[in-house]
Amino acid sequence: MRKGPDNVKLEIWFEFASTYSYLTVSRAEDLLAGTPVELAWRPFLLGPIFRDRGLETSPFVLDPVKGRYMWRDMARRCEQYGLPFMHPTVFPMNGLKAARIMTAALNEPWSGAFARSVFTAQFGRGADISDDGILRTALEACSIPPEPWLDRKHCPKTKDALRTATDRARRLGIFGAPSMVVGDELFWGDDRLEDAIAFASSARCPS
Amino acid sequence: MRKGPDNVKLEIWFEFASTYSYLTVSRAEDLLAGTPVELAWRPFLLGPIFRDRGLETSPFVLDPVKGRYMWRDMARRCEQYGLPFMHPTVFPMNGLKAARIMTAALNEPWSGAFARSVFTAQFGRGADISDDGILRTALEACSIPPEPWLDRKHCPKTKDALRTATDRARRLGIFGAPSMVVGDELFWGDDRLEDAIAFASSARCPS
Repeated sequence: MRKGPDNVKLEIWFEFASTYSYLTVSRAEDLLAGTPVELAWRPFLLGPIFRDRGLETSPFVLDPVKGRYMWRDMARRCEQYGLPFMHPTVFPMNGLKAARIMTAALNEPWSGAFARSVFTAQFGRGADISDDGILRTALEACSIPPEPWLDRKHCPKTKDALRTATDRARRLGIFGAPSMVVGDELFWGDDRLEDAIAFASSARCPS
Repeated sequence: MRKGPDNVKLEIWFEFASTYSYLTVSRAEDLLAGTPVELAWRPFLLGPIFRDRGLETSPFVLDPVKGRYMWRDMARRCEQYGLPFMHPTVFPMNGLKAARIMTAALNEPWSGAFARSVFTAQFGRGADISDDGILRTALEACSIPPEPWLDRKHCPKTKDALRTATDRARRLGIFGAPSMVVGDELFWGDDRLEDAIAFASSARCPS
């Protein structure tokens, strides 16, 4: 289906360190195939938003009982979705570099593939996504020369754009990742991805 | 389908003040119809479990941004499930009396209907479930004489049984409601009800 300016936009806000963002980023493009919905990736940083509410790190670290459950839930969900899963030794990882590269690459047709590649390295193989080598491999998997994109993470314009995105997430009432935004409607969590797509598919662009 | 001692048991742990418990308690018996799974209601108190982790009230109150989202999500979900919904003026309500009556009534065939009636009063009509009149109406809706059951909430044995249940929830690693337990497997949230039922349906009793 042609995706043009008249299509309803589904924004997927995600954080590279977030477990459930792995599920949504891995599933979204397949679920959207054949729908009139236009996907817009929205990488952002959850750290500043957690700090707004007094959380110094992931709630899954602050509450070990909840954290233990989350890893079991992730293992089950990955099995259901046919996604590779491995509990990384470090959690949460530092997703800043990956988020900056993704921010710089948003208009590139391979940006979704890059995000999936980073998430699969992290939660499928336990790789450290703050490592330039891992990011280079993820870029190479998209069949593009990695160096210019690795360099762009140092660019002030990229850094500003990511800060602006995080501020916008905050203003949208986003408090976790993944979150989906369709017009004024906010959906939180991989469990709501299908609902968000159904809502966007039935919504009409304001004319 | 006959439900006997060989059937796998699905425990549904719920708290009367919990919004998402409303969804699960309302949906469970219909979803289980025709399956070989035996349902065991497990009322408990979330307050002591929240206090274990330093939360003095519901996370949806402590974090107003998350709370605002939850009410919107509840409205959408209730519409999807065909359940009445009204944002009560008080949240969280005091579900202690309802939990005690449910605890006393666990072996009664009408206990599920009682729970649904209390939840519908609270989240469908905004009624105060700490009010004896509301609890009486919920009992009458089950076509039973309400007074003996209203009295049982004062019985030390009932109070002890509810405390024991809450302690057991804690030991099971339950940190929120609803939670579903099948053998050693824990599922959290109304979003996992279908998964828990599917798991229980495919599980075999140890012989």
